[in-house]
Amino acid sequence: MTAPAQPRLLRALAGETLERPPVWFMRQAGRSLPEYRELRARATDFIAFCHNPEMAAEATLQPMRRFPFDAAIVFADILLIPRALGQEVWFEAGEGPRLGVLPPVERLAGEVEASTARLADIGETLARVRTELEPDRALIGFAGAPWTVATYMLEGRGSDRSAARAYAHAHPAELDALLKVLVDATARYLVMQARSGAQALKIFESWAEGLPEDVFERIVIRPHAAIVEQVRAAGVTAPFIGFPRGAGALVDNYAAQVPVEGVALDTQASIAQGRRLQAQGKTIQGALDNLLLRAGGSGLDARVDTLLEAWSSGPYIFNLGHGVLPDTPAENIARVVARVTGKPLSALAAE
Amino acid sequence: MTAPAQPRLLRALAGETLERPPVWFMRQAGRSLPEYRELRARATDFIAFCHNPEMAAEATLQPMRRFPFDAAIVFADILLIPRALGQEVWFEAGEGPRLGVLPPVERLAGEVEASTARLADIGETLARVRTELEPDRALIGFAGAPWTVATYMLEGRGSDRSAARAYAHAHPAELDALLKVLVDATARYLVMQARSGAQALKIFESWAEGLPEDVFERIVIRPHAAIVEQVRAAGVTAPFIGFPRGAGALVDNYAAQVPVEGVALDTQASIAQGRRLQAQGKTIQGALDNLLLRAGGSGLDARVDTLLEAWSSGPYIFNLGHGVLPDTPAENIARVVARVTGKPLSALAAE
Repeated sequence: MTAPAQPRLLRALAGETLERPPVWFMRQAGRSLPEYRELRARATDFIAFCHNPEMAAEATLQPMRRFPFDAAIVFADILLIPRALGQEVWFEAGEGPRLGVLPPVERLAGEVEASTARLADIGETLARVRTELEPDRALIGFAGAPWTVATYMLEGRGSDRSAARAYAHAHPAELDALLKVLVDATARYLVMQARSGAQALKIFESWAEGLPEDVFERIVIRPHAAIVEQVRAAGVTAPFIGFPRGAGALVDNYAAQVPVEGVALDTQASIAQGRRLQAQGKTIQGALDNLLLRAGGSGLDARVDTLLEAWSSGPYIFNLGHGVLPDTPAENIARVVARVTGKPLSALAAE
Repeated sequence: MTAPAQPRLLRALAGETLERPPVWFMRQAGRSLPEYRELRARATDFIAFCHNPEMAAEATLQPMRRFPFDAAIVFADILLIPRALGQEVWFEAGEGPRLGVLPPVERLAGEVEASTARLADIGETLARVRTELEPDRALIGFAGAPWTVATYMLEGRGSDRSAARAYAHAHPAELDALLKVLVDATARYLVMQARSGAQALKIFESWAEGLPEDVFERIVIRPHAAIVEQVRAAGVTAPFIGFPRGAGALVDNYAAQVPVEGVALDTQASIAQGRRLQAQGKTIQGALDNLLLRAGGSGLDARVDTLLEAWSSGPYIFNLGHGVLPDTPAENIARVVARVTGKPLSALAAE
């Protein structure tokens, strides 16, 4: 019996510079695919859908059948954690998430251990996907970062985060206590995901933008570092990708202080910044504009070539700077994947 | 007759490192001051208020009487330019700006020369303020940057700019033509402001965030550089402050390519980034969090000290990273200004 081929994504995260980078897209599963919309219509609500391993595994695998992505990412949501900790979460159709009243932090802290058990369905999804996925394609687990999840918990919905940022200034000790609970719950959740089949772990800090440097260190850098350390202490060796979206120049601080293997760059990352991180030993991921992916055309091809040329001389994972938009034509996705993988479009269509 | 004292702001913009930096705040005039709200209530609408030199001059001077700021900024709005070019602009109470249908770009281009004459009221405001302001306090003129103004012109209101960014990808030639009109109108407007008494000129790119590097170069860097060049070609020597808000690591590209004397940094700028720009010969401005200014307390004092210590060894203008929020206590503003200027609070209160 020979060892299975090492997935390209894991080779990149181990620091290898490959002849062509692995490619996957944030939100590659979901609303841009008609087969997803059909599947989703069979579940009563979005939370139930995420907690249904059969459906969530199918959603995870749908884009893998359609496109030759090098990695799948488990279909789940960053707000499953607050729900597992005891805060009510639901989704208003067409409006996004809503959360109930924030329980006292002592109460949340008492639910950390139980929260992981309440998220067992996501482990089950991972196990199902790992069984079906080809061995040369990696499976990624993920969680929302503590600050990003806290903004929803504090504000009760998606927002411009100014109320949460004001809270960070006015009530630093209370926020730190909440972040600590989230660090502990998230680390346990990611350990469970790795033990269920996730081969890489991504931390999504969707709302890192606009934070002063000292606050960024306190509420982004330290919690991310703590999660990685706790997961490592549990014996998990899966590599991490950190995504401090919107952090701008502070991405450099992040990369220097958080022991992640990979740093995901958002749409406005500069070529020079990416190269700087590679030179510091990080694998970078990113940073195609999801609006350009949706627009398509020769401008899209040119930008893909620019990114490939700029970053392929170091460890690099091709991806977007943000998630696939719902109205993105599937042919644009196919076109980019063909350009990155070097497989002709006709070969893709035949797969 | 001796020459009047050179305003501290202009010395900093000339590259001088001062014993303490000049200080002024974005939106220092306006809704946070009760005297402003009283004044504003006397005008029928916001556009009329901006176009009334007596009222606008009074609004400009109000914060100068209350706080020992080193610079005043003319009270005006970035949307006066599209209005002067023939696009309808109005403000919905509690909602913000609304714009009428975008006229064809050829029609806008035909209005560039006339637009400057239609903005003569703002020149009159500047002349009035310059007469009343002490000679050691500088007067700043400003305009919105072409891309930021274009986002409003294209979308008809404030937004998340995704429609305008999509337009930038899908219709690059049309956007370039619109930006060219705005560059020409803005350069003429700033020349007029300088000739009316503005001693420094600021370009506000409020919505530079999230742009891919190549798009940022095309729609931010080049138009800013063109404005500076056109203003210089008209014989105006007033220094420029460019504010590419939200540009993150791309601020470095901006500073390297736009011949502004000063670069305004937003809330999330890093200390290292500011020092890098100073080392490259730029005067930096920023970057206190307006939410922290509103929150006040010992955290505010500590952050002010951090910024002063970090950046006062090079040319530096103390300011916020974004505008003063409407519900900011005046005593917090006074407290920060006292800390920066070294004047005790009691002396300020007595002024």
